[in-house]
Amino acid sequence: MNSFGRIFRIHIFGESHGKSVGVLVDGCPPGISICESDFLPDLQRRKSGTKGTTPRIEEDLPEIVSGVFNGFSTGAPLTILFRNSNTKPSDYSQFKSVPRPGHADFVASQKFNKFQDFRGGGHFSGRLTLGLVAAGVVAKKICKNITFEAKLIEAAGNTDIEAAIEKAMKTKDSVGGIVECRIGNLPVGLGEPFFDSVESLISHAVFAIPGIKGIEFGSGFYAAKMTGSQHNDCYIDKTGKTETNNAGGISGGITNGNELVFRVAVKPTSSIGLAQQTFDFINNEKAELIVAGRHDLCIAMRVPVVVEAVAAIVFADLFQFK
Amino acid sequence: MNSFGRIFRIHIFGESHGKSVGVLVDGCPPGISICESDFLPDLQRRKSGTKGTTPRIEEDLPEIVSGVFNGFSTGAPLTILFRNSNTKPSDYSQFKSVPRPGHADFVASQKFNKFQDFRGGGHFSGRLTLGLVAAGVVAKKICKNITFEAKLIEAAGNTDIEAAIEKAMKTKDSVGGIVECRIGNLPVGLGEPFFDSVESLISHAVFAIPGIKGIEFGSGFYAAKMTGSQHNDCYIDKTGKTETNNAGGISGGITNGNELVFRVAVKPTSSIGLAQQTFDFINNEKAELIVAGRHDLCIAMRVPVVVEAVAAIVFADLFQFK
Amino acid sequence: MNSFGRIFRIHIFGESHGKSVGVLVDGCPPGISICESDFLPDLQRRKSGTKGTTPRIEEDLPEIVSGVFNGFSTGAPLTILFRNSNTKPSDYSQFKSVPRPGHADFVASQKFNKFQDFRGGGHFSGRLTLGLVAAGVVAKKICKNITFEAKLIEAAGNTDIEAAIEKAMKTKDSVGGIVECRIGNLPVGLGEPFFDSVESLISHAVFAIPGIKGIEFGSGFYAAKMTGSQHNDCYIDKTGKTETNNAGGISGGITNGNELVFRVAVKPTSSIGLAQQTFDFINNEKAELIVAGRHDLCIAMRVPVVVEAVAAIVFADLFQFK
Amino acid sequence: MNSFGRIFRIHIFGESHGKSVGVLVDGCPPGISICESDFLPDLQRRKSGTKGTTPRIEEDLPEIVSGVFNGFSTGAPLTILFRNSNTKPSDYSQFKSVPRPGHADFVASQKFNKFQDFRGGGHFSGRLTLGLVAAGVVAKKICKNITFEAKLIEAAGNTDIEAAIEKAMKTKDSVGGIVECRIGNLPVGLGEPFFDSVESLISHAVFAIPGIKGIEFGSGFYAAKMTGSQHNDCYIDKTGKTETNNAGGISGGITNGNELVFRVAVKPTSSIGLAQQTFDFINNEKAELIVAGRHDLCIAMRVPVVVEAVAAIVFADLFQFK
Repeated sequence: MNSFGRIFRIHIFGESHGKSVGVLVDGCPPGISICESDFLPDLQRRKSGTKGTTPRIEEDLPEIVSGVFNGFSTGAPLTILFRNSNTKPSDYSQFKSVPRPGHADFVASQKFNKFQDFRGGGHFSGRLTLGLVAAGVVAKKICKNITFEAKLIEAAGNTDIEAAIEKAMKTKDSVGGIVECRIGNLPVGLGEPFFDSVESLISHAVFAIPGIKGIEFGSGFYAAKMTGSQHNDCYIDKTGKTETNNAGGISGGITNGNELVFRVAVKPTSSIGLAQQTFDFINNEKAELIVAGRHDLCIAMRVPVVVEAVAAIVFADLFQFK
Repeated sequence: MNSFGRIFRIHIFGESHGKSVGVLVDGCPPGISICESDFLPDLQRRKSGTKGTTPRIEEDLPEIVSGVFNGFSTGAPLTILFRNSNTKPSDYSQFKSVPRPGHADFVASQKFNKFQDFRGGGHFSGRLTLGLVAAGVVAKKICKNITFEAKLIEAAGNTDIEAAIEKAMKTKDSVGGIVECRIGNLPVGLGEPFFDSVESLISHAVFAIPGIKGIEFGSGFYAAKMTGSQHNDCYIDKTGKTETNNAGGISGGITNGNELVFRVAVKPTSSIGLAQQTFDFINNEKAELIVAGRHDLCIAMRVPVVVEAVAAIVFADLFQFK
Repeated sequence: MNSFGRIFRIHIFGESHGKSVGVLVDGCPPGISICESDFLPDLQRRKSGTKGTTPRIEEDLPEIVSGVFNGFSTGAPLTILFRNSNTKPSDYSQFKSVPRPGHADFVASQKFNKFQDFRGGGHFSGRLTLGLVAAGVVAKKICKNITFEAKLIEAAGNTDIEAAIEKAMKTKDSVGGIVECRIGNLPVGLGEPFFDSVESLISHAVFAIPGIKGIEFGSGFYAAKMTGSQHNDCYIDKTGKTETNNAGGISGGITNGNELVFRVAVKPTSSIGLAQQTFDFINNEKAELIVAGRHDLCIAMRVPVVVEAVAAIVFADLFQFK
Repeated sequence: MNSFGRIFRIHIFGESHGKSVGVLVDGCPPGISICESDFLPDLQRRKSGTKGTTPRIEEDLPEIVSGVFNGFSTGAPLTILFRNSNTKPSDYSQFKSVPRPGHADFVASQKFNKFQDFRGGGHFSGRLTLGLVAAGVVAKKICKNITFEAKLIEAAGNTDIEAAIEKAMKTKDSVGGIVECRIGNLPVGLGEPFFDSVESLISHAVFAIPGIKGIEFGSGFYAAKMTGSQHNDCYIDKTGKTETNNAGGISGGITNGNELVFRVAVKPTSSIGLAQQTFDFINNEKAELIVAGRHDLCIAMRVPVVVEAVAAIVFADLFQFK
């Protein structure tokens, strides 16, 4: 199901080299001020074109095709479309028989009986995150006063991220990274015990972003090395503020009024400039593959704004039925 | 929402010191052989009573109250009840004013306007995982031929887990741990791109387990330190088998036919034998708290069977609409 | 899916001659006063035992097994169980080969590969409406100030309902009837355009009641014979009150502030005292069948309280995300 | 929620006088042959332009913006867009203060705090059924071998439908009608007991069509006047065929292998050529209103293809998890 949320509910659609990608947002409350230029700052942050990102240039201009009237959301479904213009379908035809390592070419072909749009990953493309970012802009407006701030804190194990990218460029390789997200001013009490825990909802949404392979909240994996007396956060006032924040702002699955903190692991971009070993599924033999075309050296650079977006989408939904 | 799944859909209910805990399983196919003794091995694995786990003794005998007839599932909702017998409500009354660090006492009180059952964590209790384990037993039967194996691979940062527990007992403290789960024989093609990616579904379900603070698939957080040429898994045959398994068995959110591998971080048990600093919310002052009662030293010891259960629940659902 | 609702969400389970029937209510707000005796008046209205209804005597005492603490809902899932005591499984074994006309025996056998509990209709039994009525009692408490009143207005085409029942008793036959439901004090604005229109939600829930074959809102089928100038309801004040109520209180799928009125058609009880023609599916030949056991002459007599219950369930849900 | 279905799931969006209306179809299986001209016959049946329908001329050409590649569905979300071209927004501005009787103007204004697009009913417009019809075309392809046939069988209480329309034209009034739908070749066993009964699902979807005020299955309301011995359908062979079809092809909520038959009541078009009494909500006084613009005399004429569409959508979904 390409949908997420219970009341504020988003649906993404489209293909990398098809006519368009976009998002349908259902359950958006009426009266939210929305115009097309509101989307540009976050779309810009997601964009390719700076060092280390793919040179594919798309305008990425959103077109609001439903749900907004006289500058405000109407309460009816909001649909935002991004037309694809700069497509190069010929780049991708070979991957039908020789799937790219690390990509979804093989599983897509198996799952969809070879009917998938194989051009540029088709529906599996990272380009679909345009819809996530657009929905995130709306979600942030709904979560007024809540602050969302995600940033790349490490690439290739290096906190000097520029240096990591430079090295990757030289070696024609790609690198992974870690993105940290901090959310401030959340009220106490959002989320539900068990299946709608805030960790469940955020991780569900975050793993919808291509390339994410891990998530941790608060002390996360380090908590597994701690003792209870180290890990337990002491309450220090009546609002529930705690001295430490090992829990990352979530107790029993519910926001506890402290800053929400999580980190995600982003794998290195699958497409690299180097030749790679793979398998030719038609001729049933080993094959070497060079993925031409346009690629990011470090998709993790483009992930922070998408992580913010999905986190905002989670909370925009939780606010609808608090 | 205390529900999970689209077709094979589970609903958990109950309180630690109320009448019962249990699970309702909707969408279970007819004709699955089910009797009450089938549940005992996994329930035993989850049970307290061995070294380092709480001495609370419950029979934990499942009662099937609907959905099974003549030893087989009927296709109608399956309800499994566990009566609570060994309850000690008096242990918990003080936590209304002085919430236990690390527990959900404070957020529950805020979220539910003080109407929550505060005894032993009430609905937030780890005892609710009885229902998860029971549903997991049914789910494993549906996922025939699929193997699920989770185990504790590290406690308090130590792979000698016995030693870690011994040390915790001596210091009256508790410890966290890491559980690894391996799932074998999965077909290619389960899961969906984006919101129903296998990572999204598994992480959603896993974070429903109390005490989990992180999850990673395949190389996980280590992938963030790798380059693309290191991380990409080479195909070696027509079935999609790969030389390495950095992806952990999932490409583009879809099972790729290799072993599915993930690890989860379990925080140290919140209840410890040592005195702790907390806050008295009624008298509005700092307070010291000693949590009496019965506790696990390392809940991570009891988590593996629960992790297997939720993973099986995810796949039992995915098999219904493959 | 044996579930209904988005936030206030109910799940029914059980079998007529199994251990129990019941209901799990998720999303019930905390702080609703609930005790077991609250359920008795509506359960009594649903009960058999008066003239024209089955002489099967069940205590029908609800047991609240989760979700209530100190007399109030906690916000956690509420589970209500009814133990079956007065079961007579031997009555039903023949219907495996010779399905009863009008009953679900045949389709259940086909759908569930003969694994269904065939005793007394099993999960298809009208006895499952106990769970609906119980959930309805909770729903009515949530919908405070809203009035729900359903009654049987016609049986066998006769408004003298006593006479219709008398005649059915004499002829060993059964009769159908029409139930009208009126809901007062609803605010303007509940429901959504299109798929969550109030008509969609109410009809969805009402057709979950066994034996319902039609529903109409306001003028209903008669509206099809009217002209627009006759049918349009004139506004007469600023609150949206209208002179007539042909729309039955719903415009564009949304409550319009006028009384909500709908009627449902209930078919005659399928089980009758007369011999009936059917087919022997094992011997592949025509067969005559006499359905022994205990039956209602007019299930429509027991339907009003169930109709009120499902209507209240619809509105209890809509109030959660107004 | 502007969504319907569990696996084959549709989402409609748009406004009558906005940029577009359309539909997003999630869960469409891969490999269904789809091109834009496939939609034209059903769109034509829905279209205005023949006697008695609104003279508004729209091309109503579908644009497939995602989910189809090389002439086949890919398995990814399918989005179909209809651009609005022939819009006349100025017609509708007065209805902000003086709502049209029978329309959603008043409730929309209340529900959406006056942010709704009030032009031509906005999102409440019957024009949204374009998306339903388009999704229905896809659904019919999925339901191969199943036949769907709906037709208008009565208008203004008259089976001579031409005569009824003529009369309405002369009197500047509008008329209602009854649409009957017959579905053939359904297998036994689709649907679920209770909340996902076939009646529940079809009625839910049918009441999403603007102007529907009643639905009945098989003998429907007439069943309420029958006795059990008259109403029960006798089995006549091993496939479950019955002599009569009072049940309308559904037993216990499940398809029973006989023809599925239902009828819906369509109210007279709300917009009429005659002057009407209404209320001026700004000046707080009675007002007379003449609805200028383009209207159907009998929307029931355009409903059959929409009824077929939603029925096909229900079954396309049920086939995904049979």
